[in-house]
Amino acid sequence: MTTATSSGPDTGAPTFTARDLRLFGLCAVATAAAAATHWVSSGSVVPFVMSAAALALLASLVGHAVDALGDRLGAGATGVVQSALGNLPELFVCVFALRAGLYDVVRAALVGSVLANVLLVLGMAFVVGGIKHGTQTFAAGRARTIALLLLLSVCAWLIPSLTYALHTPARDHEYALSVVTAVMLLVLFGLSLPASVARDDDPHAREDVTEQEAADGAAAQVQHVSAWPLALALGVLGAAGLGSAFVSDWFVSALEPAMHAVHISDAFAGLVVVAIAGNAVENVVGIQLAARNQSDYALSIILQSPLQIALVIAPLVGASFTLVLSPLLIVALVMTAGIAWLVVQDGESTWLEGATLIVLYLLIATAFWWG
Amino acid sequence: MTTATSSGPDTGAPTFTARDLRLFGLCAVATAAAAATHWVSSGSVVPFVMSAAALALLASLVGHAVDALGDRLGAGATGVVQSALGNLPELFVCVFALRAGLYDVVRAALVGSVLANVLLVLGMAFVVGGIKHGTQTFAAGRARTIALLLLLSVCAWLIPSLTYALHTPARDHEYALSVVTAVMLLVLFGLSLPASVARDDDPHAREDVTEQEAADGAAAQVQHVSAWPLALALGVLGAAGLGSAFVSDWFVSALEPAMHAVHISDAFAGLVVVAIAGNAVENVVGIQLAARNQSDYALSIILQSPLQIALVIAPLVGASFTLVLSPLLIVALVMTAGIAWLVVQDGESTWLEGATLIVLYLLIATAFWWG
Amino acid sequence: MTTATSSGPDTGAPTFTARDLRLFGLCAVATAAAAATHWVSSGSVVPFVMSAAALALLASLVGHAVDALGDRLGAGATGVVQSALGNLPELFVCVFALRAGLYDVVRAALVGSVLANVLLVLGMAFVVGGIKHGTQTFAAGRARTIALLLLLSVCAWLIPSLTYALHTPARDHEYALSVVTAVMLLVLFGLSLPASVARDDDPHAREDVTEQEAADGAAAQVQHVSAWPLALALGVLGAAGLGSAFVSDWFVSALEPAMHAVHISDAFAGLVVVAIAGNAVENVVGIQLAARNQSDYALSIILQSPLQIALVIAPLVGASFTLVLSPLLIVALVMTAGIAWLVVQDGESTWLEGATLIVLYLLIATAFWWG
Repeated sequence: MTTATSSGPDTGAPTFTARDLRLFGLCAVATAAAAATHWVSSGSVVPFVMSAAALALLASLVGHAVDALGDRLGAGATGVVQSALGNLPELFVCVFALRAGLYDVVRAALVGSVLANVLLVLGMAFVVGGIKHGTQTFAAGRARTIALLLLLSVCAWLIPSLTYALHTPARDHEYALSVVTAVMLLVLFGLSLPASVARDDDPHAREDVTEQEAADGAAAQVQHVSAWPLALALGVLGAAGLGSAFVSDWFVSALEPAMHAVHISDAFAGLVVVAIAGNAVENVVGIQLAARNQSDYALSIILQSPLQIALVIAPLVGASFTLVLSPLLIVALVMTAGIAWLVVQDGESTWLEGATLIVLYLLIATAFWWG
Repeated sequence: MTTATSSGPDTGAPTFTARDLRLFGLCAVATAAAAATHWVSSGSVVPFVMSAAALALLASLVGHAVDALGDRLGAGATGVVQSALGNLPELFVCVFALRAGLYDVVRAALVGSVLANVLLVLGMAFVVGGIKHGTQTFAAGRARTIALLLLLSVCAWLIPSLTYALHTPARDHEYALSVVTAVMLLVLFGLSLPASVARDDDPHAREDVTEQEAADGAAAQVQHVSAWPLALALGVLGAAGLGSAFVSDWFVSALEPAMHAVHISDAFAGLVVVAIAGNAVENVVGIQLAARNQSDYALSIILQSPLQIALVIAPLVGASFTLVLSPLLIVALVMTAGIAWLVVQDGESTWLEGATLIVLYLLIATAFWWG
Repeated sequence: MTTATSSGPDTGAPTFTARDLRLFGLCAVATAAAAATHWVSSGSVVPFVMSAAALALLASLVGHAVDALGDRLGAGATGVVQSALGNLPELFVCVFALRAGLYDVVRAALVGSVLANVLLVLGMAFVVGGIKHGTQTFAAGRARTIALLLLLSVCAWLIPSLTYALHTPARDHEYALSVVTAVMLLVLFGLSLPASVARDDDPHAREDVTEQEAADGAAAQVQHVSAWPLALALGVLGAAGLGSAFVSDWFVSALEPAMHAVHISDAFAGLVVVAIAGNAVENVVGIQLAARNQSDYALSIILQSPLQIALVIAPLVGASFTLVLSPLLIVALVMTAGIAWLVVQDGESTWLEGATLIVLYLLIATAFWWG
């Protein structure tokens, strides 16, 4: 995979590459396979695996289309579009799962997305980067800002859960407090949009990026953005969005039988299975960047996704039923957001730090194993 | 207000300025109005609003007198006097509220003062400073030391609450543990006094202050310290202290009817209303400094007040009844002290960070809304 | 004591010094006295005090032998040997105490070792160093890495306790989850061994150590390592290890009568008495280093021991019964590990910070006083 992404043909950012075609093909095949196994009842595990694979690929395609669209709309709009649409497939899964009454799965999946990014993916990035490059240092800068906003947003997100877990009088007004919290988080998200626009436009706002890093960033960018014409970008986004809506539905309906077949609890299914399926391909990029010693950029990408979950997905989902999480989810979420901040603040990473993060992820996942 | 504080006449630090006179006048009028509405029963809300306004103005006047007194006694004593007397009005309110049996109001007010400073005022300082000056950086230095001491003191303060909330055997010895904790905190406060004296005397202890900052600091100082003669400073301090004792009494007796009239809970009244009334004017200074891009100085001032609450007011009040707080107050306090540290450590602030802090304050306040 | 350690004869690191002889003699006398008071029933407090003193001295001798052994095996192996055998006496005490059914004592002793190092010993190091040298600064570097690993390991260590305290379904699988956690922590310990070897071998891995610090470190080293021949080192290690096994047994059997005589709770006995007896002599070194203004080195040594407890002693002990701690122990442990990180991150220390750490230790100890 590394050779493919760093190979020559991509560097010129042509309109349409062989890699784009390959991704289209894979998505089409996987979606068809998911559809087939969904409609033909084929046991309890196969449809689930197929729809999970299709979902991961479509999530990746949505990401590409969003990047290409942002590219066409001008650099400034990229942040807005990315933030607003980048987690579309994850949102679809949550919506269908809520409709299916899988509340505990959704609650756990929201927390699990944050955990998977901060502990598992960041841990793997540190291990891969550390083994290849020894102790890696990073200037923090943007990653540090994201980590601080993530921690503060998580604190806000948890207010309804805390009043519930601690049996305060506000416990009887759980839904009202959830709605207020959701609205506040969405307001914060709205406020953060101009900042992310300005960040991309204004070169002075990125003073922490050295020339080398900028060059690395540009190289990394290539691999993300294909210079698609606007119509193609919109068309792909529409098709991939629609596809991921269908596949999300199949994924959710395959989830319950699969859970029963493999005997896993609702919480574990959400925390681990759904969370990883929703972020799989996207996260590979973060690890690849760390492998190429672009720690700063890798950190930003890996931490951006949990921030969007806290500011967009959690409130959108939470306002429709409740934002209240179980006590262990609260603790896991606070611990994880705190660790995200600590690890960035530290300014350097080693593979041993990465291994410790992975161990922590595995232990938290184990703690949710029993239903 | 900005024009008034940065105007020419103040710069020479004359004995007695027009601004001093204006503040005296305002205090006299507000105290008289508070007295009038207290003795003439005039509904349930008006006396409360009048006494709150008078209290805020008198607190500001006590602050001025303490600064002036410190100035006369020599730079070294300023820290001691400020620490010992600066929160006098807040202490009076707590004492009268305890006498009136409003224990939950007092508990919440102590925590609320910390929250209001760290989340609301610091948030507003970041927003105002960020909008005017973009990303603000600060050398941390003294602010960082204050934030660390604040976090450690808050941990100590919470030990009795934790034993109570977690049902340990020490729960049956709540009062004894509260007294031990209060004594320890006061010992720490005593130990911190020489440090704050040395800090002001010894230029080497402030090596983190650049020349520009020192100039800014001097400018900021002007606005605080009027060069009153010693007798005047002592006289104003006595009068304002006595006045704030009376007004505190009226404020507390107006509090309960006002709470019932507006239907707010004890916890919300303490956490929000009392906490803000007790710090209102003082906090404006912190925000003004941020607006003038003196982030470092603003941070020190804004964080100093919660530290005094943890080291002086909480133990004085707590030893007389109990230091035990409700679980949600524990969580809110730990979260807030942690955030104070995080935000300072970070070394820079943006308006978005400030907005997130304000949102967090609003959400915590909302969580205490229901009685 | 300072004069003894910094005196001339030691500097050449002779094969066998007068200080070594003195320590041998002290150990022999103390062990004999402990044996005598153990076999002759001599009240309830005297045997306990004698065995505690003997244990502290033998722990120091084990430490010396391990250092000398590491020196003979080459610098690379020192870290491995130190990590594996350095806490041998503490492990013996835990094993005998578990056999005697003193589960609560052992649980509290594990946490107490961490608390004693991070709060009491670090606090004393800051106070002593601060009084002698004013504000002390340190480059963090290695201490920072240790603090981060400590915090992450403590989070992992606490997962079983959290599932238990929060009544999740995993509560019914307490033992299984404890074993999984213990295995994971030991794996992490195994992974950390090559890192500590590399750290000592590779000069580039210590780039944070300035020349002056390296010289100081070498000086500090002298006092630790006696250039014993391999056979002597092995012999002393065997004898001291065997001795500490016996004395641990006597210590534990003297513990219960002493606890009843002085009326202290199981938790307090473990948290304070056992924890301090097990680390006493070793910790004096950390404080001595701080007194000589070698903050960075002092921090590394003081924080290394809690990390070994989290990665080796806790899992070894925990797997044999359970890793589940009481809620107040959970909070105390998280708070302490967090503070260890904060204090190192801060980059400088004052005696007031040290005093606050000590106050926090005293308050936590007080909270466990009542049985």
